Amino acid sequence: MINQLVANIKKTGAPIVVGLDPMLSYVPEHIQKKAFSEYGETLEGAAEAIWMFNKEIVDKTYDLIPAVKPQIAMYEQFGIPGLQAFKKTVDYCKGKGLVVIGDIKRGDIGSTSAAYAVGHLGTVQVGDKTYAPFDEDFVTVNPYLGSDGVNPFLDVCRQEKKGIFVLVKTSNPSSGEFQDQLINGRPLYELVGEKVAAWGAEAMGDDYSYVGAVVGATYPEMGKALRKIMPKAYILVPGYGAQGGKGSDLVHFFNEDGLGAIVNSSRGIIAAYKQEKYAGYGAEAFGDASRAAVEDMITDITNALNK
Amino acid sequence: MINQLVANIKKTGAPIVVGLDPMLSYVPEHIQKKAFSEYGETLEGAAEAIWMFNKEIVDKTYDLIPAVKPQIAMYEQFGIPGLQAFKKTVDYCKGKGLVVIGDIKRGDIGSTSAAYAVGHLGTVQVGDKTYAPFDEDFVTVNPYLGSDGVNPFLDVCRQEKKGIFVLVKTSNPSSGEFQDQLINGRPLYELVGEKVAAWGAEAMGDDYSYVGAVVGATYPEMGKALRKIMPKAYILVPGYGAQGGKGSDLVHFFNEDGLGAIVNSSRGIIAAYKQEKYAGYGAEAFGDASRAAVEDMITDITNALNK
Repeated sequence: MINQLVANIKKTGAPIVVGLDPMLSYVPEHIQKKAFSEYGETLEGAAEAIWMFNKEIVDKTYDLIPAVKPQIAMYEQFGIPGLQAFKKTVDYCKGKGLVVIGDIKRGDIGSTSAAYAVGHLGTVQVGDKTYAPFDEDFVTVNPYLGSDGVNPFLDVCRQEKKGIFVLVKTSNPSSGEFQDQLINGRPLYELVGEKVAAWGAEAMGDDYSYVGAVVGATYPEMGKALRKIMPKAYILVPGYGAQGGKGSDLVHFFNEDGLGAIVNSSRGIIAAYKQEKYAGYGAEAFGDASRAAVEDMITDITNALNK
Repeated sequence: MINQLVANIKKTGAPIVVGLDPMLSYVPEHIQKKAFSEYGETLEGAAEAIWMFNKEIVDKTYDLIPAVKPQIAMYEQFGIPGLQAFKKTVDYCKGKGLVVIGDIKRGDIGSTSAAYAVGHLGTVQVGDKTYAPFDEDFVTVNPYLGSDGVNPFLDVCRQEKKGIFVLVKTSNPSSGEFQDQLINGRPLYELVGEKVAAWGAEAMGDDYSYVGAVVGATYPEMGKALRKIMPKAYILVPGYGAQGGKGSDLVHFFNEDGLGAIVNSSRGIIAAYKQEKYAGYGAEAFGDASRAAVEDMITDITNALNK
C-alpha cells in the first residue's frame, strides 16, 4: 500500500492528504437540516450529516488528491452510528481510488494490539470465515508501549501489504512535555525515530517502508533531523494551515527525490467555505470551496518544493 | 466516580477489577455454537458470542467485585457488531452496580481528544439534544502527546465526575524502550507520574483524584517509587496472573489506608476454566470457574496486604 500511496502522489503531483475530521459545526446548515429531517436530532442524524458532508468533499476533490485521513474520534464521538459513518467513508474513498489513512492513534500490547491491527488493517477469523472489519490502508499508532505494541501491527502490515504511521513528534504545543525530553543529550522523539527506522527496515515496499512516521509541520527543524534518521519512512505531516504550518516549513520533510512526505490539512480544506478567502462560494457550494482550497494547498507546497 | 470506585472497593473488600477482554478462543464451544446458529459465522455471530460469554461471567462474579475493565480492542476487532457488544457490556455492568473502566488507551489533541472524551465519558450535542454514546465511568488515556491530550479529558471528568487512568509504566516487557529512558537521571515514567499528580490535583474526589495511573504489576519497585510520586492517584495495576505479577508484588502499589490501587486480571479470570486448577468446572460451568478464580485472587491479594 506504500507503493500505491507513492504511485497516487506521483500521479496527482500532490503530496497532500485531506483530513476528513468532520465536526458537526463544520457541516453546513442545509445538510444538517436534511439529515435531521430524516433521522431526527439523533446520533443517526449526526452520522448521516457528517457522511453526506464527507461524500460531497470527496466527490469534489478526489481527482486532485492521493489520500484521505479520516480521524476516527470525530466519528466515535457519535457512538455506533458515528462509527458506521466512519466505515462508510473508508469504503467510499477506497472506491474512488484514494488511499485511506485511518487516524486512530491506537496502541496497546500483545494480543490487544493484534486485535486493533486485524480490526483496522487485516482480517479477523470467525469460525471458518474471515472478515475485514474496518479495512483502512494505513493507520496511525502510538509508540509509548514500545515494540510490544508495534510488532503486532507489523505482522499484519507484512501480510496485507498495508502500513502504519507511528507518532514521533506531534504538532501540538505541549508535544514537547515528554517527546522533547533529553536522553543522553538527545530528545526522546529521535529515539522513537530510530525505532521507526528499525521497525521499517523489516517491512519494506519498493522505495519506502510500510512503517511511516507522524512529525508535525509546526516543528520544521525537528523534521529536518528526523528526515535523516528515518530516510525510508514516509512522513505524515499534520499541522499545516489551521495549526500554523506553512509550505516553506515543509521542505525539509521531503527527500531529494521530492517524495517521502505527505502533508495533511483537515479544517483548512473541509471547512474552507468558512474562511474569508473562500466565503464567496457560500455554504451551499462548500465542496467547491474545498476544491479551491486543495488547489491552493498544492500550489503552496509545490512552489515551496521547487524553490 | 472515583468516590464510587472507592466505596465499591470498601464494600466488597476486593481491590480488584475483572478485565473483560474476550478473545473468541476463550468462549466455550457451546456458546459459540449457539451464537453462530442464530447469526452464522459472521461479525454479528462473534459479537453475540462474546456478549453471552461476558454476561455469564458478570452474572457469576458481580457481587464479589467493584469494577470491570472491558478492553475495547477485543470488541473493535469485530467491527460495528463488536462495538455494539462493547456498549451492551458497559450498560449491563453499570446496571449491576459495577464501575466500568473502558480500556480504550485513546490519546490525541485538542478537539480530537475532546471528541474521545465526550464520546466515552461525557455527552455529545446533536442539535438541541444530547447523548452519552459509550458512557463508561473511567477510561485509560495515553500520555505521549502531553497536556494537550489530557486536558480535554479533565474538562469532561470534572463536569461528569468521571475519571481517567493515564498510562505511566505499562506491564509489558518492552515498556522500558521509551518509558525507562533516563532524563536528568530519572526515568520518563516518573516524569509522567509527576504530571499525573499535577493533573490530578485539579480534579479531586473526596480522598483520591479523578486522575489515576496505570502501572504494571510486573514492575513492583517502580510501583513503589510511583506510589510516592502520585499519592492521590488510584493506580490501576495490570499484569497480575497471566502476565506474571503475584500478590506479594502488589503491596507497594497500595497506600497505608489499604486503598489506592486496583489490580486487574483478565485471562486469569475470564478464561479460568481453561486452567488446570479450575478445569474441574468444565466448559459448561465456565462462569463458576471464573467465580472461583475471583475468590482466589481476592484471597491472594488480601493475604499479601495483611502481611
